[in-house]
Amino acid sequence: MELSENIVNFAGIVSSITHRRIMELVSGEPIELYSASTHLIKAGGKRLRPLLVVLSSKMYGLSPEISSWAAAAVEIFHNFTLIHDDIMDRDEFRRGVPTVHKVWGEALAIVAGDLLFAKSYEALLRLADYGLSYERVISAVRELTWAAATVAEGQAMDLLFASRDRVSVAEYIEMVSKKTAALFKSSVLIGAIAAGAQDEDLVKLKEFAVNIGIAFQIRDDELGLVADERVLGKPKYSDLREGKKTVLVLYALERASENQRKTILNSLGKPGATREELERAANTIVELGALEFSNSLAEDYVRKGIDSLYSTNPSDVEAREMLKELAYYVTRRSY
Amino acid sequence: MELSENIVNFAGIVSSITHRRIMELVSGEPIELYSASTHLIKAGGKRLRPLLVVLSSKMYGLSPEISSWAAAAVEIFHNFTLIHDDIMDRDEFRRGVPTVHKVWGEALAIVAGDLLFAKSYEALLRLADYGLSYERVISAVRELTWAAATVAEGQAMDLLFASRDRVSVAEYIEMVSKKTAALFKSSVLIGAIAAGAQDEDLVKLKEFAVNIGIAFQIRDDELGLVADERVLGKPKYSDLREGKKTVLVLYALERASENQRKTILNSLGKPGATREELERAANTIVELGALEFSNSLAEDYVRKGIDSLYSTNPSDVEAREMLKELAYYVTRRSY
Repeated sequence: MELSENIVNFAGIVSSITHRRIMELVSGEPIELYSASTHLIKAGGKRLRPLLVVLSSKMYGLSPEISSWAAAAVEIFHNFTLIHDDIMDRDEFRRGVPTVHKVWGEALAIVAGDLLFAKSYEALLRLADYGLSYERVISAVRELTWAAATVAEGQAMDLLFASRDRVSVAEYIEMVSKKTAALFKSSVLIGAIAAGAQDEDLVKLKEFAVNIGIAFQIRDDELGLVADERVLGKPKYSDLREGKKTVLVLYALERASENQRKTILNSLGKPGATREELERAANTIVELGALEFSNSLAEDYVRKGIDSLYSTNPSDVEAREMLKELAYYVTRRSY
Repeated sequence: MELSENIVNFAGIVSSITHRRIMELVSGEPIELYSASTHLIKAGGKRLRPLLVVLSSKMYGLSPEISSWAAAAVEIFHNFTLIHDDIMDRDEFRRGVPTVHKVWGEALAIVAGDLLFAKSYEALLRLADYGLSYERVISAVRELTWAAATVAEGQAMDLLFASRDRVSVAEYIEMVSKKTAALFKSSVLIGAIAAGAQDEDLVKLKEFAVNIGIAFQIRDDELGLVADERVLGKPKYSDLREGKKTVLVLYALERASENQRKTILNSLGKPGATREELERAANTIVELGALEFSNSLAEDYVRKGIDSLYSTNPSDVEAREMLKELAYYVTRRSY
């Protein structure tokens, strides 16, 4: 699916202003620390979360000039989690470049993540410079803080699941709600809070964002199995090798014959698995119908999310249309 | 030196209320994550920073009932940095117990630190529940954020210094100002800000806390070389083994003969150094007069800090006396 020219142009503007904000904030000494901290940011990324922030803010009349600080906060936070996750997962590539700990070593990578964590709050606090009420700024800080604690819980669940024999689909959904959807929710809410949206709309936007976030992660899990490596920016099958209990793996394991089960477990969580073994495991998972299941699961979440989005009362309905289009796009993307 | 009964009793009250606040905030699931996050907190520690917060708050009339939330914020933050530092330094013991990554593994330890980082903001935001103005809460959040970014810079400098040949005393002071004194400063300022202290007193308190923080770190460096291991709670000489450029090492290296230099460099940053080699290096450093130098340097900072403390205009001068006594104590402590 392709995005309309309208949203592509808008996304370009948001990405560029957010990048400018981030690079202004994340600069200083020692040079090595700041280079490590901005390494992945410079490598790009989809810049999806900043767009969520700016669009939800625009729905209630706040300009990108201001909301881009909140967008920077969320993108900086996201990059902090990527640096730490890559250390934990021992991933070596991301966004087509070596991961931070591969270039600067683990110790400096840990500190680089910590620095970005702090800088995400610094970005958010900039909202106070634009005449936003202190109450709104505090609400936004509270929201980011909630996301930070929740993402940590989700990341811990993801780690713990890898060494567990059985994980249910419900547990998987709880884990991705925390690991991924929490920051989607906070991105959308921080944007709306900054713009002064009413509480009843915040409840609906929360519902929208959580559902889209879950669908996004399901799609991400699918792409780790079937996407073209060159557009993925990282090695295929790394989820399998790391023993990640994705919804596709869970579905397949539940339905596998003894032989199919062996083929999958032969690669799952085995750092030494060969490319052929991984490929065979992935094929088995697909043959068992895991993709059809995960696709239909993701579509359910997308539908619920969009319904909730359409029950809001924004002043700018065009911004809501763009948010809808974006939601469809990111949950059906092929990279 | 011994603390007066007055301050010992008060410290006990602060420590217990702060502990209660922390344990209330840092609880949840997954259990493994929360156990890892509270591991060092349960092991105790000096609880010095909470006392700085509560006393500076008391100077301007705020009760420990309220300021203990800010105290909890700072102590939680401090414990986050300890977990991550122990991973980076590969330290195996702290506060007489195995470090978090030794018990739960590196990956979960990284997340446990990240969770505490988030929880420190959660603690600080509790101040808003007590009728403190949003403006004060934002100022406190800004202060914690400044400390977080600065501590990361200091930690990175500490790491980078270990692999550098030459580091000047001025560079060392800049590093400890960031790594250690920044959180002392923010502890004192957050307490005073929450209590509504005037800007001119904040400037003086900052001067006080930075100077005491530097002296504290110098004393910490000394203790790593000469303290009794049983009261230290961690192996002696770990700074030496990790190649830390403490002020004692810097002083000694500048004055060492070729032979003495060899003795020191034989252990400095050598993970395989034997106990005897480390002891010989430590003795050489002491023989070169490093302790006299570091002691007199620390005393200069203490004096400057106390002078600045005495130029404030608090409503509760008894609290200021206690803060002074505490400052003397922590910069002259033997554990």
